[in-house]
Amino acid sequence: MSSSDIFIGETIGTAVLILLGGGVCAAVTLKSSKARNAGWLAITFGWGFAVLTGAYLAGGVSGAHLNPAVTVGLAIQGGTEWGDVPLYLGSQLLGAMIGALLVWAVYYGQFHAHLTDPEIVGTKSTEEGMVDQTAAPKAGPVLGIFSTGPEIRNGVQNVITEIIATVVLVLAILTQGLNNEGNGLGVLGALITALVVVGIGLSLGGPTGYAINPVRDLGPRIVHALLPLPNKGGSDWGYAWVPIVGPLVGGALAGGLYNLAFA
Amino acid sequence: MSSSDIFIGETIGTAVLILLGGGVCAAVTLKSSKARNAGWLAITFGWGFAVLTGAYLAGGVSGAHLNPAVTVGLAIQGGTEWGDVPLYLGSQLLGAMIGALLVWAVYYGQFHAHLTDPEIVGTKSTEEGMVDQTAAPKAGPVLGIFSTGPEIRNGVQNVITEIIATVVLVLAILTQGLNNEGNGLGVLGALITALVVVGIGLSLGGPTGYAINPVRDLGPRIVHALLPLPNKGGSDWGYAWVPIVGPLVGGALAGGLYNLAFA
Amino acid sequence: MSSSDIFIGETIGTAVLILLGGGVCAAVTLKSSKARNAGWLAITFGWGFAVLTGAYLAGGVSGAHLNPAVTVGLAIQGGTEWGDVPLYLGSQLLGAMIGALLVWAVYYGQFHAHLTDPEIVGTKSTEEGMVDQTAAPKAGPVLGIFSTGPEIRNGVQNVITEIIATVVLVLAILTQGLNNEGNGLGVLGALITALVVVGIGLSLGGPTGYAINPVRDLGPRIVHALLPLPNKGGSDWGYAWVPIVGPLVGGALAGGLYNLAFA
Amino acid sequence: MSSSDIFIGETIGTAVLILLGGGVCAAVTLKSSKARNAGWLAITFGWGFAVLTGAYLAGGVSGAHLNPAVTVGLAIQGGTEWGDVPLYLGSQLLGAMIGALLVWAVYYGQFHAHLTDPEIVGTKSTEEGMVDQTAAPKAGPVLGIFSTGPEIRNGVQNVITEIIATVVLVLAILTQGLNNEGNGLGVLGALITALVVVGIGLSLGGPTGYAINPVRDLGPRIVHALLPLPNKGGSDWGYAWVPIVGPLVGGALAGGLYNLAFA
Repeated sequence: MSSSDIFIGETIGTAVLILLGGGVCAAVTLKSSKARNAGWLAITFGWGFAVLTGAYLAGGVSGAHLNPAVTVGLAIQGGTEWGDVPLYLGSQLLGAMIGALLVWAVYYGQFHAHLTDPEIVGTKSTEEGMVDQTAAPKAGPVLGIFSTGPEIRNGVQNVITEIIATVVLVLAILTQGLNNEGNGLGVLGALITALVVVGIGLSLGGPTGYAINPVRDLGPRIVHALLPLPNKGGSDWGYAWVPIVGPLVGGALAGGLYNLAFA
Repeated sequence: MSSSDIFIGETIGTAVLILLGGGVCAAVTLKSSKARNAGWLAITFGWGFAVLTGAYLAGGVSGAHLNPAVTVGLAIQGGTEWGDVPLYLGSQLLGAMIGALLVWAVYYGQFHAHLTDPEIVGTKSTEEGMVDQTAAPKAGPVLGIFSTGPEIRNGVQNVITEIIATVVLVLAILTQGLNNEGNGLGVLGALITALVVVGIGLSLGGPTGYAINPVRDLGPRIVHALLPLPNKGGSDWGYAWVPIVGPLVGGALAGGLYNLAFA
Repeated sequence: MSSSDIFIGETIGTAVLILLGGGVCAAVTLKSSKARNAGWLAITFGWGFAVLTGAYLAGGVSGAHLNPAVTVGLAIQGGTEWGDVPLYLGSQLLGAMIGALLVWAVYYGQFHAHLTDPEIVGTKSTEEGMVDQTAAPKAGPVLGIFSTGPEIRNGVQNVITEIIATVVLVLAILTQGLNNEGNGLGVLGALITALVVVGIGLSLGGPTGYAINPVRDLGPRIVHALLPLPNKGGSDWGYAWVPIVGPLVGGALAGGLYNLAFA
Repeated sequence: MSSSDIFIGETIGTAVLILLGGGVCAAVTLKSSKARNAGWLAITFGWGFAVLTGAYLAGGVSGAHLNPAVTVGLAIQGGTEWGDVPLYLGSQLLGAMIGALLVWAVYYGQFHAHLTDPEIVGTKSTEEGMVDQTAAPKAGPVLGIFSTGPEIRNGVQNVITEIIATVVLVLAILTQGLNNEGNGLGVLGALITALVVVGIGLSLGGPTGYAINPVRDLGPRIVHALLPLPNKGGSDWGYAWVPIVGPLVGGALAGGLYNLAFA
């Protein structure tokens, strides 16, 4: 796989992943969105089909990791060369930032209407939807569209939740080859990975909002910090290490577990 | 592919797409429908499976574009000959109009009950469901069953939203070939495209109702203008250019992006 | 295909179809069910996965028609011999009756609790959920678990709705062969047919509850008439012809349309 | 298949099954979970994708039974050797216990917040969600996250419900081979089995919560009995035989029915 393929596939694929994933959070959160309050099933299926679309687009180009935890797991397993890892990670972070910017472009009017509504931003508990402001006092009213946040703020527990959820994701991806009988599995694999992500969201997303991907959280958080949104509040940098460390540890553990048990 | 195959596949396929897509909007909107108020997930899955059914039916006949944005993207990519484009577009528009008429036939009694209910049509805010009448003052009370409308009316923003959503759709379709390993991908491709459309709806449908297809909006809007429905209100022609221009530009951009980055 | 294969596949497959399809209606309707009031999405996905399970079970045995409308459409297309049609139809009706009996066995306690609750059966509007009693005055309080009923009772409109919905279903099944490239399509076809049924339910189920299958309605209606349920009310035989005639006409039209346009 | 492959595949696969399956019950039940009250569709899709993930992970290693009812059915059919059955069952029970422990780890803070909330544990009807305490007086307030319980407590009816639901599941798995044309069916089979489980949940889960798997119920029930949770209440051992006996009988009946009718 050429460097150019990795760069193009991971940047575009991750941008689409975050555009659709952040998009569904915007859709259910923001004022004047047809999908407002569509609920947790909408969020989890939305993120799952975001994975499907990004993976389907980039699968034939870069292998569609779209996630540093996957890249690290594959490097430990031997499916990806360590020398390619920095390019994968950098492209993924760039793509995640582009995706978050595109969410802003798609929901530009909705962001403005939401953040200038006195009923929404005029009180202390300004956030509606995914993030409980009393539990996350530094998070701004639309930060949940960009990044994850915990319902109960406890670094150790939050990291453990992210580690376990990421092990499930990356182990499922690593074991694909064991089922591979050579025909169209790339496409079918993208579909099943997407539904696994829906399942992880439904089952393990309750405590932290299932980042399970460092750039899915960091990229949009940087964009949130930079965007000139009115009344946007803080970017909750105190929590930012959890969705980086947890998924990276989880990806590495999955790679190690694969080599121990499945190889 | 013969002209007759293109005409039959695109007309019947697009008719089924709009019959099921418009049908789910009727199902959740109209009085005396078992599905009334079934919610945004029902609408987005309904449209996705409408794509699946139309694409599955017509896939082996015309390639199942069912959408001028797809046809334009494929022509730029080289997968479709430019000489066939007018026939594709004409057949799609005809099919979309037939589909909208069939929605009327299926929900004939429901349309009458809805549009003659004084509580529904006797006040200014007559629309229930997808279109906010205060934001779209010219739209009639059942127009949302036929055509899309914006939550916040701003032509530039609305077009940008439609462009971005259509780029995602068409790029996903164009990159199918990269994953194609030759076995049954036509059917699997129809399934994945359908789920991508569910994802686009969940994630990017909030501002404009995701036309992402010029004839999906124009065909039913023409039928709405012509049908002898009581108290139907206006057909909101002032907005009609947005879901034509946005998807066509998006399809062309996806074709160009494919040629630049993926070819 | 031997007569024994047809009998076994169609009887068991249709029994499973109705067990799961009637089951989801019981699940969302009856008192003391964990799924009570789970909504229209639950009903439509439940029926779709009922089709998937029955078709998957019987696909390798009898071809899994499970529906006289499909059998008639395939006979007109030439995929099934006319001489086998009576055995298909008889096995399907027997299976549908067995399935309805199994729903009763699974929800035995719930049926009793529901039908002996004075709040549920003590008033005129006793039905909860799918059937509006004011529109269908002769239907009993649990008939909607067995058979379909219209929201607006108008034989001509109701038949037209069933015809159009059945044409979509049967045409999608008949065109499967056009996409068939020979590998595992049987299984993938069962999945796609199931999702098409979810789509038909979401989009076209609002007026009549989408029988789209004569035995799906007739078999359970006979069982409803025979079962010794307390306070069960009438079996609404005045409507019973609609979900027989509509789907049979729709299946025949789909067969004819296939021969004209796709063959 | 080596003993080591059976042990690894079944232990890890069943652990993932119960982690995600118990996880979705925790997600919709516990205080301070983002998914609280997400509803029956979330529960049934969550369990289905739990099956998908576990089966996908373990499919290439141990065949991914993950369920003694499946192992017994396959042994009767001849697809699994009787001598391997004890190892399958033991590994499955171990995996189920590990999975339940992981649910506790993921939702550690939520369990504590829920079980120390006076409004939740201070009254007689303490359970929210799946288990009705008035009907199941001995069940603790979070037992429904671990094990199943009936809405109407009647051993004979509850066992019959579990038997019928398990026959559907195991028969669908046993007939997979009849559709198998040799390409990628392992993966597609995992997907279809998962959706069949969603269907069984939607349709047959109303009375007992569809254990359809002895270790899915027993393993987590043991963990519930052992875990030092505050105010956890009883583990309802009086019901524990139902989700063991019912699924085992159902699996055996499915194996026998397969040999009689399909072989």
